[in-house]
Amino acid sequence: MASTNFRPLHDRVVVRRVESEEKTKGGIIIPDTAKEKPQEGEIVAVGSGARDESGKIVALDVKVGDRVLFGKWSGTEVKLNGEDLLIMKEADIMGIIG
Amino acid sequence: MASTNFRPLHDRVVVRRVESEEKTKGGIIIPDTAKEKPQEGEIVAVGSGARDESGKIVALDVKVGDRVLFGKWSGTEVKLNGEDLLIMKEADIMGIIG
Amino acid sequence: MASTNFRPLHDRVVVRRVESEEKTKGGIIIPDTAKEKPQEGEIVAVGSGARDESGKIVALDVKVGDRVLFGKWSGTEVKLNGEDLLIMKEADIMGIIG
Amino acid sequence: MASTNFRPLHDRVVVRRVESEEKTKGGIIIPDTAKEKPQEGEIVAVGSGARDESGKIVALDVKVGDRVLFGKWSGTEVKLNGEDLLIMKEADIMGIIG
Amino acid sequence: MASTNFRPLHDRVVVRRVESEEKTKGGIIIPDTAKEKPQEGEIVAVGSGARDESGKIVALDVKVGDRVLFGKWSGTEVKLNGEDLLIMKEADIMGIIG
Amino acid sequence: MASTNFRPLHDRVVVRRVESEEKTKGGIIIPDTAKEKPQEGEIVAVGSGARDESGKIVALDVKVGDRVLFGKWSGTEVKLNGEDLLIMKEADIMGIIG
Amino acid sequence: MASTNFRPLHDRVVVRRVESEEKTKGGIIIPDTAKEKPQEGEIVAVGSGARDESGKIVALDVKVGDRVLFGKWSGTEVKLNGEDLLIMKEADIMGIIG
Repeated sequence: MASTNFRPLHDRVVVRRVESEEKTKGGIIIPDTAKEKPQEGEIVAVGSGARDESGKIVALDVKVGDRVLFGKWSGTEVKLNGEDLLIMKEADIMGIIG
Repeated sequence: MASTNFRPLHDRVVVRRVESEEKTKGGIIIPDTAKEKPQEGEIVAVGSGARDESGKIVALDVKVGDRVLFGKWSGTEVKLNGEDLLIMKEADIMGIIG
Repeated sequence: MASTNFRPLHDRVVVRRVESEEKTKGGIIIPDTAKEKPQEGEIVAVGSGARDESGKIVALDVKVGDRVLFGKWSGTEVKLNGEDLLIMKEADIMGIIG
Repeated sequence: MASTNFRPLHDRVVVRRVESEEKTKGGIIIPDTAKEKPQEGEIVAVGSGARDESGKIVALDVKVGDRVLFGKWSGTEVKLNGEDLLIMKEADIMGIIG
Repeated sequence: MASTNFRPLHDRVVVRRVESEEKTKGGIIIPDTAKEKPQEGEIVAVGSGARDESGKIVALDVKVGDRVLFGKWSGTEVKLNGEDLLIMKEADIMGIIG
Repeated sequence: MASTNFRPLHDRVVVRRVESEEKTKGGIIIPDTAKEKPQEGEIVAVGSGARDESGKIVALDVKVGDRVLFGKWSGTEVKLNGEDLLIMKEADIMGIIG
Repeated sequence: MASTNFRPLHDRVVVRRVESEEKTKGGIIIPDTAKEKPQEGEIVAVGSGARDESGKIVALDVKVGDRVLFGKWSGTEVKLNGEDLLIMKEADIMGIIG
């Protein structure tokens, strides 16, 4: 819940995995038996965006607090403020729930 | 039939597979014995579109309700609202039926 | 001969293979003994075209009714209205006969 | 010598291989013992050109009648009007003789 | 602490690894038992930036003094002024701490 | 010395290898014992240039008569007017001597 | 010290390796026991620059006389004026010392 003091660069985001017991909230259920299924998480930090070809920064489409689905193997694990989080690129986010 | 509360990012779409018994409707038959044949489905959610090189968002060509053909192995399976659906990119959609 | 109610997306086309007995018509003969030789077909549906870098849709160069040559292994087989057809990209079409 | 009724798409050309006995004409000799050496041919049909990034069609640099060198393994063999010809992209043409 | 007299070219940066005993400062802890986890470091020199497609130089987002996370295997080791440092591209930097 | 009646397409050039006995002229010596060392040659024909992204033809930087260095394995061997020559792209030319 | 009469094409540079005994000058030491460590050298010739997408030539950032670091395996060895030198692309240069 506490925001982390880490600012991802460019088109990267920081995601907190949502544990299985929370997954039934809102009726969204993702089976955790199958491999390669997408996983649910919450965006806790977003980069300022990547530059397009003309050099202009394009803001990301996800924002802090968004519930998202992402590929099971996406991102790099990192511990920030004692919490296990994931750093990934926005392109690894499949969509927003809710 | 119920719309799902999932918003795919960028050029992704959510597709509901059409079961075999529905396939003969409208005279469209896709043999399910052959491997790698395209499959039929219905678009249930579409992203807001990908950005072109100048940074402008280009809306997708498919819309919710479209009957589409897609590659047998396209997309990622996900369960939303208790329903098995597929998330894929519009580029995986071969065309629209009807 | 009947048009199919399938609209290919973007730069895809639907092609009906021309059977061997029709191939001698017009003096065009493609030996079917050699592997990887191009095959003859007829365009039965065309997409609205791909977008160029500026986001403008570029119409395809082939149109419905065109007799074309395409690579033996190009395209995806599909049965539409009970007929075996091929969905491929215009880039797989080598040229137009006639 | 007779023109073929085949129109190559985009940046493709149709090439008639020049047989070895003709190769000494004009003092140009290409040894046919070595593998991967370029081969000599005559352009018999040219596409209308590929589109550049702005969507404008750029005409090809070779024209019908040009004597050209091309890679030994370039192109796809096809029989048009009973004649064995090659369909290849202009990029496979190394240059023009004469 | 002493600045190094090395100017990285384009979009490269020079990074000083932060030793494990410093890592708990500020509450940021990165487990060093797991392989492939990102590592913490401090930017000691930055290039003037890469050119975008129009030839304009785009300044880097990181600056000297920034605490950053980077991939465990990123960069090239080099000894400058007797100190072990890393030269890497800004794209290898995941984000800024603090 | 005689110019060849071959016009390379686009960004290709025709190069005449300089034999070892000529290599010491001007004090330039390239050891021929080592493999993968660049070789010396003379430009005998140049293409009109490749097109840039806007479709404009960009003339080549080398001209007929230039002494150049090129990779030992660059280019395609061809016999033109009874002479062994090489056809390669300008990008394979490392630089100009003299 | 003597300039070489070789003009590298486009974005290539000619580099003279700095021998180990010179490396301690200025306090810069690069261990030569480790493999894949960058090496020190001096720029002795630079190309006129590569063209950007609009066809404009972009001058290189390094100039003759610059002390540079480059990858151990970068470049092609060549002997010019009896001296062993390296031809490489500017992108292989990590940065400038001093």
